[in-house]
Amino acid sequence: MPKLVNIKQNVMAADEKHAASIRKDMERRGILLLNLIGSPGAGKTTLLEATLKTGRFKASVIEGDLATTRDAQRIQATGAEAIQINTQGGCHLEANLVEKAMSQMDLTGLDILFIENVGNLVCPAEFDLGEDFKVAISSVPEGPDKPLKYPHLFRQAGAVVLTKADIKPYIEFDEELFWTDVTNLNPSAVKIEMATTKGEGVDAWLDLLESWLRDKRSRA
Amino acid sequence: MPKLVNIKQNVMAADEKHAASIRKDMERRGILLLNLIGSPGAGKTTLLEATLKTGRFKASVIEGDLATTRDAQRIQATGAEAIQINTQGGCHLEANLVEKAMSQMDLTGLDILFIENVGNLVCPAEFDLGEDFKVAISSVPEGPDKPLKYPHLFRQAGAVVLTKADIKPYIEFDEELFWTDVTNLNPSAVKIEMATTKGEGVDAWLDLLESWLRDKRSRA
Repeated sequence: MPKLVNIKQNVMAADEKHAASIRKDMERRGILLLNLIGSPGAGKTTLLEATLKTGRFKASVIEGDLATTRDAQRIQATGAEAIQINTQGGCHLEANLVEKAMSQMDLTGLDILFIENVGNLVCPAEFDLGEDFKVAISSVPEGPDKPLKYPHLFRQAGAVVLTKADIKPYIEFDEELFWTDVTNLNPSAVKIEMATTKGEGVDAWLDLLESWLRDKRSRA
Repeated sequence: MPKLVNIKQNVMAADEKHAASIRKDMERRGILLLNLIGSPGAGKTTLLEATLKTGRFKASVIEGDLATTRDAQRIQATGAEAIQINTQGGCHLEANLVEKAMSQMDLTGLDILFIENVGNLVCPAEFDLGEDFKVAISSVPEGPDKPLKYPHLFRQAGAVVLTKADIKPYIEFDEELFWTDVTNLNPSAVKIEMATTKGEGVDAWLDLLESWLRDKRSRA
């Protein structure tokens, strides 16, 4: 066994009040709030584009990035409202930033508000943004060991979406290992496999959104 | 243009003293210290395995991960020494952790000490570990927009390595955009394209390591 140096680092922020306030507001408005978390290039924006283009939900997007408004522009091209938060080096979104962004949006009549977090499997998992669910997005080319190596995110996710499944014939990927590790970390997570640009898995994803939205509104 | 909320976050740590001490020690020993930074699944460990298997350098590895000793085990399987630092949620390595790990290693006669940072394009770019160079590892499946979206890393990198080039026929990837953005951010970065598991680009990478090592030792 390799030698191991264990260091506990506290990266939790004290903005639970903002998260609680967001949660209350979303509850009142009946809007499903989802926090999408994945590596750079996992396919988060592509998944959102595919979702918005179907027109099945009235949805808007808050985009988190270190720099550029590129992702927000991609979202706006679908006709949906998008607002970009640039963290200027910050590795995740915090609830106070999200609340500020929300105050600049028209949330009237919205079904779903998506937050696309900064591309990162670590920091975003530690911060509550008032979301109904975190969604973990992991792509085939990243390799099957991501759940075990980044357990904080996968343990908390309401759903795990495996993207770029159409790359499987061209790359070594142990699918059984990936899903077994997900199940062991988080038995209740919904599991969806997608080849988003080929349209595969999109229906399963939309159905999940619909059931989450229905559940939330029936509880209200 | 999308609306933009700009927030400056200070994520710099105050462990410059440890970085300076590491740098001095590596100078004295004539060891090239490299800090490899890339997304989860960019191919950092695979690049190290390929490098170590050639036997061209006497090299050891410090592995940074949130959890598991998986990467250190992969490195040890090549016969090289590896030590794992588990950050337990921390999104990057800091110099004080690296120095502690080094104190547990036999550095005698080493040519190169590699640090494989936590899979993340954000936080690791902010921290000086006393390295000679940061190396940015980005893979074709992540998409070509990563340099612009994560400019802090690409601006500082001594070399940018584009991995998984063999996936290009199966995925949309604007190579010219990627390299143009890299050049604009960092004109002096060495650029290498690799299909590591196919052996492509490995020689260019090894030649770079050799020239860096030669330069360092000739300065001593």
